Formats: sequence, structure tokens, C-alpha cells
Amino acid sequence: MAEIRTVRVMESLLKANDYVAQRLRQAWDQGQTFVVNLISAPGAGKTTLLEATLPVLLSRYRVGVLEGDIETERDAERIRALGVEAVQVTTGGTCHLEAPMVEQAWRLMDNEIDFLFIENVGNLVCPASFDLGEHLRVVLLSVPEGDDKPAKYPKAFRTAQALVITKADLLETMDFSVERARREALEIQPELQVFVVSAKTGVGIPAWTQFLEQRRRQTFPDA
Amino acid sequence: MAEIRTVRVMESLLKANDYVAQRLRQAWDQGQTFVVNLISAPGAGKTTLLEATLPVLLSRYRVGVLEGDIETERDAERIRALGVEAVQVTTGGTCHLEAPMVEQAWRLMDNEIDFLFIENVGNLVCPASFDLGEHLRVVLLSVPEGDDKPAKYPKAFRTAQALVITKADLLETMDFSVERARREALEIQPELQVFVVSAKTGVGIPAWTQFLEQRRRQTFPDA
Repeated sequence: MAEIRTVRVMESLLKANDYVAQRLRQAWDQGQTFVVNLISAPGAGKTTLLEATLPVLLSRYRVGVLEGDIETERDAERIRALGVEAVQVTTGGTCHLEAPMVEQAWRLMDNEIDFLFIENVGNLVCPASFDLGEHLRVVLLSVPEGDDKPAKYPKAFRTAQALVITKADLLETMDFSVERARREALEIQPELQVFVVSAKTGVGIPAWTQFLEQRRRQTFPDA
Repeated sequence: MAEIRTVRVMESLLKANDYVAQRLRQAWDQGQTFVVNLISAPGAGKTTLLEATLPVLLSRYRVGVLEGDIETERDAERIRALGVEAVQVTTGGTCHLEAPMVEQAWRLMDNEIDFLFIENVGNLVCPASFDLGEHLRVVLLSVPEGDDKPAKYPKAFRTAQALVITKADLLETMDFSVERARREALEIQPELQVFVVSAKTGVGIPAWTQFLEQRRRQTFPDA
């Protein structure tokens, strides 16, 4: 009984989420703000990937970041140190971002931007269920996590359009097969664009940022 | 409105969970089965820690493992390769184990065991909210995840009695301060016992397994 009620409440919450996500997407389309939702386990390197990505984009684009965390302002402070506007959303226990949280944060930001990066709460499970109105969903998998993770946490991979394998500098010392991770991820989602990067050495960052620019151009051909 | 209803349903689900957890704890107390609940982000090394721990305990104890995953039987197969009984619970989407899932799996197992290890779903957030009737809750933090995680994901650390910092062999090459991780974890939960281990080199494994034996003796002085 309780289970059936939970499912129904969950359905209605997801519906409310999707309604706000749709509203956000319309606003972003109108303003030609290309929005990227980054999803990964804790410590996969979302903030570090942004620290490597933003300086490349900053020369040509106006960029903003929305940082989702359960507690602390630390990630937003790292982004601000690059001279980029960052709004921190602390969820206070909730294990993922929902569209209404994003909408509230978006109201506090400079809306005249070309790229908005949303760094989700570190969690490879629940964030995958919530549309935030983004144009591009990216799942990160770090080399130390292991190449078996796509099959074990399929939804994050199934709902993403790009996979970024991070901390590639550790490939030499760790037992991680890029081929296996790529193959198992593509079995789950054949449309995934796969990038292998190291924010430390810079490997793979140009291909990744070019992909972001290209996707923005495809989404807003008149921009 | 929907939010209030969700909170109530959540409360009643947690109550139902705690009821089953209490029943499990009583059964385990009666059988002198010492139960350890392992919680961490995906890829922090729960299965690998078990692969290093079980051979040490096997010479003196009867041991079993309950493997929680969203999908795949892979972790259970790794444990069975050690000659240890492992029951896989695939949650089919749910991001954490709940006591009723554990009870169902426990019914399938040999109940005459001294140690039961429960490997939770890889998630540093939601599993912390569900009592599984365990005697000892252990949170793992791997060196590549970063020393800033206790403050960012406090509940898993607040509700645990032990913290195992894993993949210590990577301390030389990565920017991770054991001191900072320990200090911030102890600020959240001053009673935490902290271990620094590498399943690869074996560093720290003796102190960790001695701690497990000692805790079991304290829990069951007549055993």
C-alpha cells in the first residue's frame, strides 16, 4: 500500500519536475544559453574538468556555473577563482538536483551567457532520473572507479549523450580498459560520444571543448 | 502538498525499514552473526577490500557476503571465487539497500556464520539513511575521490563507526591529505575509527581485520 502511494507521489513529483524543466529549456533556448548537466560519482572530477574546460571557452564565450552539493560552498569557490560566476545550490541532504532548485538558482545569475554548466550532486544513480532542462547530459567515469561501472549503473549512461573518461593520466598505473568501458557504455547507449581526458596533463581537453562548441552551434545555428 | 505527502510516505517507509532492521538485528544477535554494512561511492573499492579481508578471517571464522547492486552479478562472482558464499541483491534501480531486501537475501543464505558483510549499492548519499540491522557501519573513502568528501557528504560519515581510506598506494602520486580527510571526518563524527589501507600492497589490512575481530568479541563476549 505504502509502496503504491510512494510510486504515485514519485510520479507526480517527476511530472512537476518535468514541467519546470520544460520551462527552463524554453528560457534557455530563447536566450541561446547552451546548458550542460554533468553527472558522476563523488570525486570523479567534475569540478576539475570544469577547471580545465572553462579557460578554453572563456576567450570566446560568456560562461556560468551552477554548483550542486549536499553541503559546502567549496566547488563554487574553485570556479569563482577562475573569474567565472558560480552559484552554489546546497541541497541539504537531497542526493540530486531537481529542476525547481535549478530555476531558483538561475534567477540569481547573469542570464546573458552562452554556456551554463550544471554540476550535479556526486551520485551516479539518482541524478539520472531528473531532467533539468539541459541540452546536453554528460556522464563522467574516472579511471580509478573501474571499467565495470557502466553495466552496474546503467541509467546514468543510458540517459547521457556524452561520456567523459577522466583521470586518464592514471591509465598507466591502474587496471582500467578504456575499450571495455567504451564497449559496455555503448551497449547501453549507442549514441554516446566518448572522450578520454586528463585535466592534469590536458590530454583530450581540446576534443572535448570542440565537441561542446559544435553542439552549441548545432543547437543554435543562428548564434 | 505533494511534498508534504512525500515526506509522510518517506517517514512511514523509514519506520517500516527500521522495524525489519530491528528484527534482523535480533536474529543476528541470537545467532552471534556480526554484521558489517559497507557504504561508499561507486568504485571506492568495497569488493576489493572484501577480497583482501575475507582470506584473513576465513581461517578462524565462517563468513558470508550479501552484495547489493543495481544491476549485474559481478561482485558476487568475485566473492564466490574466494570460496565464500555470496548472495547478490540487484535492486533494479533503487539506489540503496533497504532492510526488507536484506531480510529476503538472508533467508537464502547459510545462517550459521560469524561474520556477514553487506556491500551496499555504490552511493555515498542514500544508503546512509537506511538501517540494515548491522552491528558496524563502515564508510570507505578512496584516495582518488579526494580528501574533501567528508564535509561534502556528511551523513555517511556521521552515521558510521569506522572510516576506511582505501587505495593508499596512490597517496604518493595524488594530492590527498590523510590528515585533512581524518580531521574533517572526525569533526563530523568524533567516534570514528580511521584506517588507511591498500588492498594492493596489503598496508593497513592487519589493523583493519584485527578491529573487526575485536568488535565482534565486544559484541558477543560469550562467542
